[in-house]
Amino acid sequence: MPRQITAFSNTLVKQVRALRDKKHRRREGLFIAEGLRILTEAREAGRLPEILFFGEGARHTLLDALIAETEAAGGDVVETNADILHKLSGKDNPQTMLGVYRAFDTGLAGIDRSAAPLWIVAQALRDPGNLGTILRTGDAVGAGGLILVDDCVDPFSVEAVRASMGALFTQRVAAAPWDEFLRWLRGGPGQLIGTSLRAETDYQAARYEKPAFILIGNEGQGLPPAYEEQCDLLVKMPMQGKADSLNVAVATAVMAYEVVNQWRRA
Amino acid sequence: MPRQITAFSNTLVKQVRALRDKKHRRREGLFIAEGLRILTEAREAGRLPEILFFGEGARHTLLDALIAETEAAGGDVVETNADILHKLSGKDNPQTMLGVYRAFDTGLAGIDRSAAPLWIVAQALRDPGNLGTILRTGDAVGAGGLILVDDCVDPFSVEAVRASMGALFTQRVAAAPWDEFLRWLRGGPGQLIGTSLRAETDYQAARYEKPAFILIGNEGQGLPPAYEEQCDLLVKMPMQGKADSLNVAVATAVMAYEVVNQWRRA
Repeated sequence: MPRQITAFSNTLVKQVRALRDKKHRRREGLFIAEGLRILTEAREAGRLPEILFFGEGARHTLLDALIAETEAAGGDVVETNADILHKLSGKDNPQTMLGVYRAFDTGLAGIDRSAAPLWIVAQALRDPGNLGTILRTGDAVGAGGLILVDDCVDPFSVEAVRASMGALFTQRVAAAPWDEFLRWLRGGPGQLIGTSLRAETDYQAARYEKPAFILIGNEGQGLPPAYEEQCDLLVKMPMQGKADSLNVAVATAVMAYEVVNQWRRA
Repeated sequence: MPRQITAFSNTLVKQVRALRDKKHRRREGLFIAEGLRILTEAREAGRLPEILFFGEGARHTLLDALIAETEAAGGDVVETNADILHKLSGKDNPQTMLGVYRAFDTGLAGIDRSAAPLWIVAQALRDPGNLGTILRTGDAVGAGGLILVDDCVDPFSVEAVRASMGALFTQRVAAAPWDEFLRWLRGGPGQLIGTSLRAETDYQAARYEKPAFILIGNEGQGLPPAYEEQCDLLVKMPMQGKADSLNVAVATAVMAYEVVNQWRRA
């Protein structure tokens, strides 16, 4: 049976609220995901929350399933009110439920490159919304996951999880410094594909091989030239405008769709 | 010569700060854009600020050009400090300069459809980051502009301008209720292309004609079925994942690149 918590001063409420901070997430090895859609996506991917909060009055057969399975797995199920959900999520219009999940291992060793034809590699990504959006795109194009190179934003941040729309639970996520990633990559098959304004090959003229690793650079600077030099292919997307730039999550998606479209035609 | 303002209580500082609020933007017909890159993009598009704020110590030949041209056009140029720039922008790390611009007319009558082969139409778009990102994509694909249908987020919001990276100044922006847009559209040539999970035609199997109008729906709901029925083409992008969804700005870009790629091949 769910227990009830309605006091702001409750210790659990304070602990979960603290998970909005990266330092606390790291220390506890936990993170927050919100909303029926994302929690259900997680459940279907075989992930249940350690703690499930839901608002009094929330009713849905999918919520019933979440409650039953979380309890059966030994998790903590808590019925609470909108004020506390607001306090936990930091949103003006909080979702009616919220789960606290165990963070995944993000070691490169956990990545089985043969499990998917396509992987996305992001370098020094700074914006959690971009990270989540790229995970969501990865899910749509059948990528295996996202490898975060160098100092990227935390994939377990509330904003990244939210923007991923649940894809954090269906995509593998790894993090590694560039040198370690490159050693790992060259330890097996894999075509490293960089996009660059300096490239001369049109992204539709290149031929992509499996497993393909699409490498994208930081929002402001793009890829460091030394990283571009390590790519097997360096391609450019046509730009007809004045600004000569695309949002990094948009560029990733346009590139990824070109790769899978080539494979669809083959 | 630039004048100096260093007091939080200054009337102009208060008036400009108020422009972060939609109601004030509407009343004053003004909006804020930040940063050398965006202000320069605006200048190159022939738009100068009515008021230009820059931080003491900011030095750049492009800033010199902005100051000279703004003063020559009768604008107000104000040298200020980082604290006030922070107060005006609401960001922890404010840009070193900020412009206050006259809002553009967003009437459909201002759209000359023959000026570009491609236009983007967004319905009930809610997120300013998505709106700005779509403008930026529009610039990159050579679209003429963005038509906002029904109740969309304000294109002049600080977040939308920021995400557009200056494309707000290079793309036309119009806003209209659906009925008015449809009447306008059918008053001339134009292929209305909707994307829908319910569509049967693959987006690469369709043939796109100029001028093409890509219609995209709200972040949560997608397009209303009645709007889909008005489309000349209804296409779907392949989704291989579990979530069956893409971020709306990502979907717009993947669609827009397919359209221009077809035309590049022809």
